This record gives sequence, structure tokens and C-alpha cells, in this order.
Amino acid sequence: MSSDATRSASPVEQWGVFETALRGPAEGNPFTDVTFSAVFRQGERAFPVTGFYDGDGVYRLRFMPDATGEWHYETRGNRPELDGRSGTFTALAPSAGNHGPVRVRDSFHFIHADGTPFIPFGTTCYAWIHQSGALQRQTLQTLAGAPFNKLRMCILPKWYPFNHVEPERYPFEGTPPRQWDFARFNPAFFRHLDTCVADLCTLGIEADLILFHPYDEDRFGFHREHCEVHWGFDRMGEANDDRYLRYVIARYAAYRNVWWSLANEWDFVKPKQPSDWLRLGGIIQAEDPHRRLASIHNGGCDFDHAQPWITHCSLQKPHTDGARAYRDRYRKPVIYDECHYEGNIPQSWGNLTAEKMVAQFWSAWINGAYCGHGETYLAPDEVLWWSKGGVLRGRSPACLAFMKTLLADAPSNGAPMNPPYWETWGVPDEYYLVHLHEQQPAKWKIRLSGDNARFKASLIDPWAMTIAPLGEFHGDAELDLPPGRTHLVLRFVRVHHTH
Amino acid sequence: MSSDATRSASPVEQWGVFETALRGPAEGNPFTDVTFSAVFRQGERAFPVTGFYDGDGVYRLRFMPDATGEWHYETRGNRPELDGRSGTFTALAPSAGNHGPVRVRDSFHFIHADGTPFIPFGTTCYAWIHQSGALQRQTLQTLAGAPFNKLRMCILPKWYPFNHVEPERYPFEGTPPRQWDFARFNPAFFRHLDTCVADLCTLGIEADLILFHPYDEDRFGFHREHCEVHWGFDRMGEANDDRYLRYVIARYAAYRNVWWSLANEWDFVKPKQPSDWLRLGGIIQAEDPHRRLASIHNGGCDFDHAQPWITHCSLQKPHTDGARAYRDRYRKPVIYDECHYEGNIPQSWGNLTAEKMVAQFWSAWINGAYCGHGETYLAPDEVLWWSKGGVLRGRSPACLAFMKTLLADAPSNGAPMNPPYWETWGVPDEYYLVHLHEQQPAKWKIRLSGDNARFKASLIDPWAMTIAPLGEFHGDAELDLPPGRTHLVLRFVRVHHTH
Repeated sequence: MSSDATRSASPVEQWGVFETALRGPAEGNPFTDVTFSAVFRQGERAFPVTGFYDGDGVYRLRFMPDATGEWHYETRGNRPELDGRSGTFTALAPSAGNHGPVRVRDSFHFIHADGTPFIPFGTTCYAWIHQSGALQRQTLQTLAGAPFNKLRMCILPKWYPFNHVEPERYPFEGTPPRQWDFARFNPAFFRHLDTCVADLCTLGIEADLILFHPYDEDRFGFHREHCEVHWGFDRMGEANDDRYLRYVIARYAAYRNVWWSLANEWDFVKPKQPSDWLRLGGIIQAEDPHRRLASIHNGGCDFDHAQPWITHCSLQKPHTDGARAYRDRYRKPVIYDECHYEGNIPQSWGNLTAEKMVAQFWSAWINGAYCGHGETYLAPDEVLWWSKGGVLRGRSPACLAFMKTLLADAPSNGAPMNPPYWETWGVPDEYYLVHLHEQQPAKWKIRLSGDNARFKASLIDPWAMTIAPLGEFHGDAELDLPPGRTHLVLRFVRVHHTH
Repeated sequence: MSSDATRSASPVEQWGVFETALRGPAEGNPFTDVTFSAVFRQGERAFPVTGFYDGDGVYRLRFMPDATGEWHYETRGNRPELDGRSGTFTALAPSAGNHGPVRVRDSFHFIHADGTPFIPFGTTCYAWIHQSGALQRQTLQTLAGAPFNKLRMCILPKWYPFNHVEPERYPFEGTPPRQWDFARFNPAFFRHLDTCVADLCTLGIEADLILFHPYDEDRFGFHREHCEVHWGFDRMGEANDDRYLRYVIARYAAYRNVWWSLANEWDFVKPKQPSDWLRLGGIIQAEDPHRRLASIHNGGCDFDHAQPWITHCSLQKPHTDGARAYRDRYRKPVIYDECHYEGNIPQSWGNLTAEKMVAQFWSAWINGAYCGHGETYLAPDEVLWWSKGGVLRGRSPACLAFMKTLLADAPSNGAPMNPPYWETWGVPDEYYLVHLHEQQPAKWKIRLSGDNARFKASLIDPWAMTIAPLGEFHGDAELDLPPGRTHLVLRFVRVHHTH
């Protein structure tokens, strides 16, 4: 290989997606016959990256440079035109709004690579990419005006109550409902998903990509107790599952806003065994060169979050006050990605009041965890935000925006406190947030600090979205609280005098 | 012993307390020097009963005949005047209102010995017996008009926030605060407790007697983080603990309304180890001839409810929807004796709204458990119902009375149902109760039965205490529900036509 053969590509920004394409064979089955990869290097650092076939004889490599400066790569492949090719490109300083990927900070929290805090305020639109173009555009428009910075979304289409629409595109070659060649991906489907992930990135939203899920059955009977396979994407078998997962990693790991959610409701995916999830998790661990955040979300049974590829506990629970047990056991961040949704559908998980949805977020936070939103209001067109996207009708998003703004001011080293600080989060002697749940104390006592430092007290109403000053306190403080109000939050911020 | 020496006593009613007294030594320490017991017999059945010293040279035996007819007893003692004495008495049919002791029914429920159902609606007045006579009379008066049929109450006095009153009587001879002869009981204290237990029995209230508790410390500092022993009844040592427990069993086991609660917040009693609780539980098992209901109540850590002397799980939890795990594990009834209290005190466990207190009961019931009430409203005189008794100020008791009446009509073989019946309790094809928690479904679907039986549907508002008929439904029913209301209950009762 001469240095002339080294391609010099246009610069990309740090944490942006560098992409290059090579032409290779289009005959046979390129998805199974052809191997194609590269090693990306900067100085001593090397990142092995798997390429992917994108149809029409085009083979692509995607890579996210995690530092500015010169980068070099060299390919390997089992076809001459894909082997031993090399190239260079330059990574420039990130543009405004590009804070880099999100990583775990201090065991229980998240932070962008550039040091910008990331406090997850997630929402859920499981099947938004499978809806009409107009509806997808509306979803993005809604997200642009909403407080959410993380979106749970399925790659595989969803067949479920309120979700009986055949999508425009399928991830595999074939004919719906059940004639699929699982060994051949549909590039058009994935090119569309590329755009969706990139659009979310532009909006500053992390794409929590759900890789497998159990929503692939026709269910009959009033309570849907009899079921038949719909597409069968939940039971493709080990070889097809593994190939699909490797393809998704090769294609999406370079997007800085991608998180892996190995499954939604892993224990409800009947055709899979725990050993399958361990094997699939091992593939993520081995093959994601960018080490994206990764989790697995439960139905009724907790997964073993100690697995090394799991970066945080992604939980479904009806209550959000139990995070300490998960923190203590796993020493990882805890996100209640699902804790029922605001809405009014008959299903027990989809008819919380807006007040309760907001309270779930506060309860999670005070106990050292994060929370996720969803919305399920009945609509004649069956477009429910939780799955199809569209517009938000509920009253919780405004309150969550208020909460998000408020927490942006909270100290980054805050933590749930121990008795005698009940339901209190903060930093001893500096900052306290107390969540009063469905409590109505007439008086509240708190020891603000051992010395005589003064604290500004505020009464926060997360529902009315008001912050009322209560005056300054010090030492052992006792406050009178208004009667008959619940879900209030008390905040005490130490006053530092500058001279 | 000649048959002339056999005393013939006045008749008592079945499940009443037969009591007889003998004179014996008053010198030395009768509590430790003298042994005194009897065997009660009817036909082939024999019940060994321990007597107790009641001061002034008087030794008593108490026994509850569990069947009508002739009973005979013969004493044993290590003093001639207490040994080999025999007697007979007749047990008559029980009077109205005497339904016999409460027993476990069908693993998870309770029933009186005469077959009358017992659905626990407990409340809590921990230290009511230690208050002034006037206050105790007021407590009994309040209980007479309240829906509660079980009362959690401590035998040993309580020293705790809102509880810094030295009682009129102490269980041991000595001088407060810490000069006690634990080897000598104070008969006046226990004669008073006899009356209290009997008064509750007259009101049809089970006395859940708490035998040990951790509330015996002077706590200093704003958050009471420094503590000193107050009376020391929580750290009397093994021999004194055992003697006290045996004395209480000898004295109270014959009362049909007595339940044993070995401890309140067992894990907060710092001077005791798990092995102490196992030993003390073993004493209950070995020495209670009447096999009263027995439990042990937790602070933060569950006890092992599999112990053979434990008849039911007595829990403290902030949520009451987790009973199924306890039912499945222990196959015993579950009572959330403490799930926070209605009130407005600063302590996090004492400021629930009345609505939430009521919802705790419903949530427990729907999941196959029972619940307990408590009330902690600030009062200038520091008389809070939860501990001292007095009057009830809250709004939950009326709603609990409504609930109790409503459940008296529910089928005795009802149970929490499995998906797709979420948060539903009932009997398949016969009766369903659905608790909607903080949910606001606009529509609700339920499969009422496979055949065409008709069901009367009602919308129950546990807070407004209304039952609104919704009409008749059958098969796969779909109901429209009023918007914006929470904590509603739906009831479906099968219509049986008689010809």
C-alpha cells in the first residue's frame, strides 16, 4: 500500500460522526459473506471498528473521534477492494451544543464528555420511527419544545394495543407479516433510522435505543390471553439475533447520543432465556468501540445489573423511592425509565394523574435516582405519545421543565441523606431539598448545620411551579407550613457572603 | 386430697376468663421463689396453665374454656397450700357479642372461634394505659364510636417525642427513673392492665399487646442523635426479660381478645440481638396454653416470619401494595400494622393526608392484606391519638367505617387476582373489586365471566363515601369513568336470580 492510496477526508468535529464508504461486492449476501472492519488510531490509541453493508455495493465505516487532531484508519476485509485501505481525517473542536457523549459520573450520575452535567429527563415514544412521515415530524417538533433530553425508542417495530399499524419499512428483507430473510437487512429502514438518531442528536436528546422487545404478538380475547406471533422479530433465533445486534452496533455506535437498551421488559420476551441476554450483553461489551451507556429494562423481574456491560440500572417500578437498594448493591446510576405513565387508558400502567407523574420524578431524585416520563391519553386516532409520538396533551411536562430548571442549580455532589434527614437530598451544611410526598406537616424541623451559617429557605410547589421565599434560617430550624397541601418541596441554600 | 377439697366455682361463659385465687406465702420474693400452675381438663383434653402472684399473698390462675360443659383443674406448686388443689366449674354458652378468640382462617385471613368473620381494622394508641384516668376513659369512649376492632398498645411505658410523661404506675417495684427491682412486679400496674384489656374486650376490640419496644431513651440534640437510658425496660437482661414475658403470658393469655406482638420495631431495640427474639418467641410458643395470635413488628428490617410461633406478618412499610411476596413466602396473613399515620407532625411517618391513609387500607386489601390506622395531629397538650389516645380529629376513621361496612358484604373466599386482572380482588365469575389508586382511566375494561351472567356494577368513592350504581354488565365489559377523580373503587357483583 502506497501513501498515495491514503484517502484524506473532510474534517469532522470532535464527538461527531466520521463516515467513509468503500465500494465492494453487491452479489451473494454481502451481510453474511463479506467481512469489513478498520482500526482507527490517534497516536498510541487504537479503536477497532466494524463496518457495515448499506446496500448497492456500498460498505461504510462510522467512527466518533473522542479527541481533536489527526486521525488515521486502515481497513481489513475478506475482499481485496475492502482490505488494506487507509485514510486520515482531522477532528476539529466541537461546535456549540455538542457536549460529547454522556458517561457515568461519580458512580451514580451522568456527565457529558466536555463536563456539562447531564440530568436525565427521559420520555418514551417506543414506535415513533415506525409512524408516518408527518407524524414523525410532529414528534420532533414536540420534542423541540419539551423538557426531555432522553428518548426511549424501539428499533424493531411494535405490535401491541394502540399499535396495530404496519410500518412503511421493515428492518429485514421480506414480506409482512412473517416472510423474512433475517440474514438480509433492509438498508432503507436503517438509513431512515440514521436520520432519526441524528435528528434527536441535533435536538440534544439521547436516543435510548431498545434493541429487543416483547411486542410482537397478535393477542386475541378480551384480555388478550391468546397470542400468535405477528412478525416474529422477537424469536429470530440466536444466529439472527447476534447478527442483527452486531449490525446495529456497527451502524450506530458512532453517534454520540446513542445509548443501548438491550431489551424492554426483558423477562416478558418469552422466546429468550437469561443466557440469551447474557450472550447478547457480551456482544455489546466486546464490539462497541465507543463504550456507550448500556442497560436492560425489566418487566416484573429485575435483571442482574452487576453484569459488566451494564452501565446503569434501567428500572420499571410502580414506586420510585427504592433506589438506595439498587445504588448500594450495584454502585451504578439508577433510572426509573418506566414508573407508569400520565394518561387515562384502562391499562393499569397508563393512567396516572399528572401530579403523580411529577411526584414520581421528585421521589426518584430525592432518593438518588432519575426518572422517565410517558403519556397515554386516549385519542380517537390511537396516537398516544408513549408509543407513536405526536403531541403532548398532559400537564406533567411543564412541571418537569420547572423541575429540570430548578435542579440545574442544585449542587452536583448532592446525594440522598441519611436519618435524621428523611426524604432529604443535598450536601451537608450547604444545600438541602426535602420532598414531602403525600404529607401535610404543619411544622417541619431541620438541622441546617453545626455552625451558624444562614440558609435561604424556599417553599417549592412542583405542581403550581412556584418558589416562595420563607426567609433565612440557621442551626436547628423549625418552619410553619401551609395546611392541606401535599407534594411540596423545601429547599435550603446556604448564604455565602463575599467580601 | 379428698373430693371435699374440690372447689366448685361459679360458671363462666365459653371463651370467658375463668379465674381462681389461692392464698400462699407473701414473704420472700413470691415472684421468684414460688412456682404455681395447674392443669385444666375436659374429658381427654388437658391444658397446662401457669399461675401468677398478684401481691398480698394471693396467687391466681386464669383460664379460657374453649368449650361449654364441665371443666376440672388441679394445681401444682412448691408450697403445700398451692399444691394439689382441685376445682371444677361449668362453661356456659357464650353471651351475645362473645364470638370467641380470633384465629387464622384459610392461611391469609382471620375468623372468630364461633365462625364470625374478623377483618382487622386496627388502630394504634401505644401508651394509652399510661395516661391519666380521665384520658383513658376518653380513649375508650372514642373507641366505642370508632370503626376499629384491634388496638396496638404497649405494656411497658413509652418515652419518646410527644411522650415525656411519667406514668402513674410502673410494671416493676422501684423508683423512677432507673431504680428497679426487675424481679418484683407491681401488681397494681397489672391489675390496671387487666381492666384495660377487659374494657377493650367489652368493646369488641382485640388488644394487640406489644411486649417489648425501643422507646425508652432520653434523646438529646435537635435530631435526638444522642441518647441516654430512661427507665431501662428495654435492657433488663435475659433473665428479667424472660420472667416478665412469662408473667404476662400467665396473666393475660386467658383473655380471648389478646394478641401477642413480641416487639414494636424489633430491629430498633438496640440492646437485643436476633437470638433474644428467637428465645422470647420460643417462650410464647411453649407457654401460652391458648395459642394466641402472635407476631413481631419491624422497624427497617423484616423479621423471619417463618418462625413457628408467628401466626401472621405484622409489617411496617411506607407502601401497602407488596403483600403478595409475604403471602407467597410465609403463607400467613399479612397486616400492615404501620404504614405511616394521618397527621401533620414533622416526623416523616406522621403526616399523611386522610385520603392517603384511606388509600393505604384499600391498597392493602386489594393485594390480600390488612392495614392499621394511626393519627398524629399536632396538639398543644401533646395528646396525639397514636400514642396517648383521647379523641380522633382526622377524617380517615369515617372513611374506614364506610370501607369496613362495604367489606362485610364481600365474599369470604375473595383473593387478589392475577393478570390480566390488575389491582383486582375477588372471586372469579362472582365478585370483583378494582382499586384505581392514583389512576384516572377514562375507560375501564374487565372480563366479568366466561358465561353470560350479569353483574351489578358500582362506582365506589372511598373518600366521598358514596356507592353509585353504574348499571348491569356481562361478559367483556367496558365502562366510562368520570374524569379527574382518583382512588376510586369499582365493584362488580354477580346477579343471582332466584325462582
